[in-house]
Amino acid sequence: MGNVAVIGAGMTKFGELWDKGLEDLIAEAGAKAVNDANIDGEDIQAIYGGNMSAGRFIGQEHIGALIADAIGLTPIPSTRVEAACASGGLALREAYLAVKSGTYDVVVAGGVEKMTDVYSEQVTQTLGGAGDQQWEVFNGVTFPSLYAMMARRHMHDYGTTEEQMAAVAVKNHSNGSKNPYAQFPFKVTLEQVMSSSKVAEPLKLLDCSPITDGAAVVILASEKFARKLPQEPIWIIGSAHTTDTLALHDRKSLTSIEATRLAGRQAMKQAGVTPKDIDLAEVHDCFTIAEIMAMEDLGFSKRGEGGKDVESGKFNLNSELSVNTSGGLKSCGHPVGATGIKQAVEVTWQLRGEAGKRQVDDAKVGLTHNVGGSGATAVVHIFSKEVD
Amino acid sequence: MGNVAVIGAGMTKFGELWDKGLEDLIAEAGAKAVNDANIDGEDIQAIYGGNMSAGRFIGQEHIGALIADAIGLTPIPSTRVEAACASGGLALREAYLAVKSGTYDVVVAGGVEKMTDVYSEQVTQTLGGAGDQQWEVFNGVTFPSLYAMMARRHMHDYGTTEEQMAAVAVKNHSNGSKNPYAQFPFKVTLEQVMSSSKVAEPLKLLDCSPITDGAAVVILASEKFARKLPQEPIWIIGSAHTTDTLALHDRKSLTSIEATRLAGRQAMKQAGVTPKDIDLAEVHDCFTIAEIMAMEDLGFSKRGEGGKDVESGKFNLNSELSVNTSGGLKSCGHPVGATGIKQAVEVTWQLRGEAGKRQVDDAKVGLTHNVGGSGATAVVHIFSKEVD
Repeated sequence: MGNVAVIGAGMTKFGELWDKGLEDLIAEAGAKAVNDANIDGEDIQAIYGGNMSAGRFIGQEHIGALIADAIGLTPIPSTRVEAACASGGLALREAYLAVKSGTYDVVVAGGVEKMTDVYSEQVTQTLGGAGDQQWEVFNGVTFPSLYAMMARRHMHDYGTTEEQMAAVAVKNHSNGSKNPYAQFPFKVTLEQVMSSSKVAEPLKLLDCSPITDGAAVVILASEKFARKLPQEPIWIIGSAHTTDTLALHDRKSLTSIEATRLAGRQAMKQAGVTPKDIDLAEVHDCFTIAEIMAMEDLGFSKRGEGGKDVESGKFNLNSELSVNTSGGLKSCGHPVGATGIKQAVEVTWQLRGEAGKRQVDDAKVGLTHNVGGSGATAVVHIFSKEVD
Repeated sequence: MGNVAVIGAGMTKFGELWDKGLEDLIAEAGAKAVNDANIDGEDIQAIYGGNMSAGRFIGQEHIGALIADAIGLTPIPSTRVEAACASGGLALREAYLAVKSGTYDVVVAGGVEKMTDVYSEQVTQTLGGAGDQQWEVFNGVTFPSLYAMMARRHMHDYGTTEEQMAAVAVKNHSNGSKNPYAQFPFKVTLEQVMSSSKVAEPLKLLDCSPITDGAAVVILASEKFARKLPQEPIWIIGSAHTTDTLALHDRKSLTSIEATRLAGRQAMKQAGVTPKDIDLAEVHDCFTIAEIMAMEDLGFSKRGEGGKDVESGKFNLNSELSVNTSGGLKSCGHPVGATGIKQAVEVTWQLRGEAGKRQVDDAKVGLTHNVGGSGATAVVHIFSKEVD
């Protein structure tokens, strides 16, 4: 099986985009990525699109065909995949497999979500569908409360503090303040995070990622096709997708996401890298505690030390490992089906040296980590400037 | 790329299954298919699951992980795909590609829908999400009305009659009366169809497929794996997936589904067969007019003669071509995400000679045809007892 390249990337600004519908977002991100790839639409052989819940957000299903229609690419096969907030990462994974296996030479991986057409309570209910409706959501659980339980247990077991969680938000907003695509491109202070309204203790408003509209697209190609283009390709050297129980209460641990641990290990093994080889990581910080757990589960921090590490500055821009240079879900925003692709767009830009004020110096290897629900799906990809 | 076999098949009874939840349906169909395949759960390397709208029907998304969880197969990759009423066919297509390409040796393709937990008006609204929410559904269109427009135009252009459409229902109920898995396993007469309540003229109640709960599973494997099992494999020799515009008003024709025409042609070309080589076909009869159009688009009838052909008995059980031996969507029922897989289960049973009272004599080659919405997605597969 051959090598797989990212040959193009594009995204919309993330935010409350009340003047744009789902099709508008898809068309904008798609056109940017096609132009960036220096290809024609007719070069594209298949589409994989990630979307969590257009059915509940805007009454629209049949998202694969809608994407092909919106960007004028019918009758090629276009497949919607869904894995809650990991829908984008999963679209990338399926597009990667489709090229890796030799099925197609050029495949679009996109993600989109239009979340602001309904009231925020409806968004909370809809996002609950990422967990176990029958055993969790029906009984009153929301996503902030699920992650609050994880945070509480992490504090209990390892002495993690609310200030350490707040440090994640401070770092990610600092990065996001340098990203013109971010929904909230401004800095926040530790005091602002600590004094923000409680959402589900110990999580406060500024520990939580926002509700966002947006779309992102990357275009993947076989090595043979990619080598013919003028631009330098970025290579996907590792890819993994794992699952776990839907309900948090069925897991062995509240302080580790087993699906992340396994997917990280599988992707790094395939790529032939260790955590030390990675220069930047876009990880799934739906809540600040989630980034701390991801650092531990992916092997960037020792177990229980993710909070201390972020507080120490280890994960700041251009420190030991640059984490969430885009601003992460926290500052860049979290259109749930688009996030996994946005992570790939950011890593592509970073490895090309096109990330502007948030550029990681001499970035060679990057990682993306996308989680569905409270950890029932994890998707990890590793990108490199070089390939064997 | 190697050959792909169906090594196991299973399904729940279709119907209003008020005592069973989504997970129960998945577990029942999954266990039947695994037993039928003579394999262990640990042989399975990946899952593709088709589901249209669990988000709106039962408040549950994240269906890939839910399936892996329900059948105890975490942490393997499990991917939900959605293409409205073609979600099942698309899951089959993705599972086929995953095996065909050498990515995996053993992959589950499943489909499930739980539709009867909400009121029927909500089902109608939800199914509208298969069309164009913005330009069709918002303005009052429902699926019966979309297909009624196609029927009206087919009558106008070709002289197709309401009696010819009714003949589809009579035939499919006759087949379904022999299928213990069918939701409505009884015969209907032409008079009963013609005198049933009007839904969207010229379509009457008995021209329409019902609202159904159910799940179906097939297990696919590489030739190398399949040859080690005691049972005879059934081979997938053709597979195609195409798209078209989401909205009916954007299409060139109201009387032909272009996506079906293209997918049929692609799948038959890959399989090296013509319509004459096919012994049985499970086609997408969401409304009786849809079967008439499918017969024409797949090349089983000349353009405009689908109505006459069904009336003449050409598509009856054990006539020239046995069409919808399961009873089709009309009599067997239409749990939208499961239908495409149920078609594959039926063809597998037929080619094995296990279809009981509805067995097609000497069945060697079968076709499945699954449509999303009013034709924005079509998925066609061709199955054979023999393979090169």
